[in-house]
Amino acid sequence: MTIKVGIVGYGNLGKGVEQAISQNPDIELIAIFTRRQPNQFSSQQNGVKFEHISAADSYMGVIDVMIMCGGSATDLPEQTPWFARMFNTVDSFDTHAKIPEFFDEVNAAAKENGKLSVISTGWDPGLFSLNRLLAQSILPEGTDYTFWGKGVSQGHSDAIRRVPGVKGGVQYTVPVEAVIERIRSGETPELSTREKHLRECYIVAEEHANQEEIRNAIVSMPNYFADYNTTVTFITEEQLKAEHGEMPHGGFVIRSGVTGQGKRQIIEFGLKLESNPEFTASVLVAYARAAFRLSQEGQTGAKTVFDIPFSYLSPKSGEELRRDLL
Amino acid sequence: MTIKVGIVGYGNLGKGVEQAISQNPDIELIAIFTRRQPNQFSSQQNGVKFEHISAADSYMGVIDVMIMCGGSATDLPEQTPWFARMFNTVDSFDTHAKIPEFFDEVNAAAKENGKLSVISTGWDPGLFSLNRLLAQSILPEGTDYTFWGKGVSQGHSDAIRRVPGVKGGVQYTVPVEAVIERIRSGETPELSTREKHLRECYIVAEEHANQEEIRNAIVSMPNYFADYNTTVTFITEEQLKAEHGEMPHGGFVIRSGVTGQGKRQIIEFGLKLESNPEFTASVLVAYARAAFRLSQEGQTGAKTVFDIPFSYLSPKSGEELRRDLL
Repeated sequence: MTIKVGIVGYGNLGKGVEQAISQNPDIELIAIFTRRQPNQFSSQQNGVKFEHISAADSYMGVIDVMIMCGGSATDLPEQTPWFARMFNTVDSFDTHAKIPEFFDEVNAAAKENGKLSVISTGWDPGLFSLNRLLAQSILPEGTDYTFWGKGVSQGHSDAIRRVPGVKGGVQYTVPVEAVIERIRSGETPELSTREKHLRECYIVAEEHANQEEIRNAIVSMPNYFADYNTTVTFITEEQLKAEHGEMPHGGFVIRSGVTGQGKRQIIEFGLKLESNPEFTASVLVAYARAAFRLSQEGQTGAKTVFDIPFSYLSPKSGEELRRDLL
Repeated sequence: MTIKVGIVGYGNLGKGVEQAISQNPDIELIAIFTRRQPNQFSSQQNGVKFEHISAADSYMGVIDVMIMCGGSATDLPEQTPWFARMFNTVDSFDTHAKIPEFFDEVNAAAKENGKLSVISTGWDPGLFSLNRLLAQSILPEGTDYTFWGKGVSQGHSDAIRRVPGVKGGVQYTVPVEAVIERIRSGETPELSTREKHLRECYIVAEEHANQEEIRNAIVSMPNYFADYNTTVTFITEEQLKAEHGEMPHGGFVIRSGVTGQGKRQIIEFGLKLESNPEFTASVLVAYARAAFRLSQEGQTGAKTVFDIPFSYLSPKSGEELRRDLL
């Protein structure tokens, strides 16, 4: 018996989930729900239907878990509470400041209807959060560091594309290696986000634009770039397509603590991802498995990664896990 | 209300637990149990009693969780099942091959008596196991690597001290950095343990011993050193004491996987520990908190790190964790 899932939203993340499901034989994709015309799409997987999002309710009792692949800004705040009334769900809601409110709303919707929703999976929030919690619990006296990158920042890429004379461009957030090495060697400096990261911009300029003006407009841009070490590199449109079309990302969570008479203990977790959306999708699928099992046990309401034992993420039995992985 | 704990065994690990408890205000140390004469000891913490291990049963109903600090070879296989009849327990049983059998025995003892036991915590088994499970669940197609060190290997240190002419010595297992870098950069070589690690020996020779003979005896020792790149460095007794008296350790768990059309995704977890026993002790204390809570909820039997959500390790509430760490 397979776990039957649906995908809501067919952008990069939804496509990543479709691919991730094909790596997990215990999970079966039933249908993909979109706000666009469903008949323009077809899945590489046999038997998968594309449906308009408004048809989702007809899949109640058929789909075990809905994997929510909309954006955190406007899609998920509406969609997850709505779907949580009808289905178990899993999402990657990532607006950190709004998580408590989102949790409460989804929790109420799911509980009232006997469903279970895992919110805010992915890697940050998600795997990074798990490591922050684990490391703090083991080393109560210590300092936490989170670094992001090297990876594309969508907000900063949008900002540089709004500069006059800029035709296209992409911004990478890059962790400062020298700072990471200081922490790994036992120092615990106080650091702001800007001291931990560089910003690298790759720009395609309009034909007659003044490159120096563009560079100055970017590096002096308040909030986005003014307080960072920012580099601006001008490239051709072909280079932008050929060399900057991917969505790599990653980062590090480090806790540097002390035990006993000042013994230094360092816990580090890191990700190096060639595809950010495909990795997030893979996390979603593992937590969809967990959502199904928790629901089968009769649990309801909203859960986060903090509430779920890792054994629920794996298709293997407890016995196999203890024998092969402990 | 504090969680009241006892320590069974007062070696390096037990002393580490005593220190770790002082970093956790919600946990109170009641008594330390030893097979030696208890009246030769005194704790730095107020009100802590030293008791002979045979007096443990008189603490039933007083101590919430017993933290088992004996060795895995002969102590824990006897002690954990015995104590699991009377108390919730947590241990760091680390004989990987015997975990299934140990689990069954402790599970039966704890279940029959309505107690809960968390077995095989620490970092390997323990945190490393958690990361193996997490990474495999998220990236079903991939390759796992575990590296240990730089750290003291007790078995190998014992072996070199048995070589004729050796007065004292210590052996460090050292991961091969060049191999780790290959994996981090996306290669997935097939590697045996010996290809991943070097062995560094620091030896104090007897006064008239032949150093070349000692060196040859070590590097050609079957099973222990013959198949490894082994270095032997002769030092003085003072150097051994001054520079090699600590118990550092650590290592890395890396999974290198692929998603979609061959996108490489790397998950890495690493520890850099100045004190191996103090760190293991800190993990034990966090899981003692979890054992208490699970028991309060009415759960019984043996559990491993795979079965326990991270929220149970922290003194913070679910609401605080979602707000501050997710």
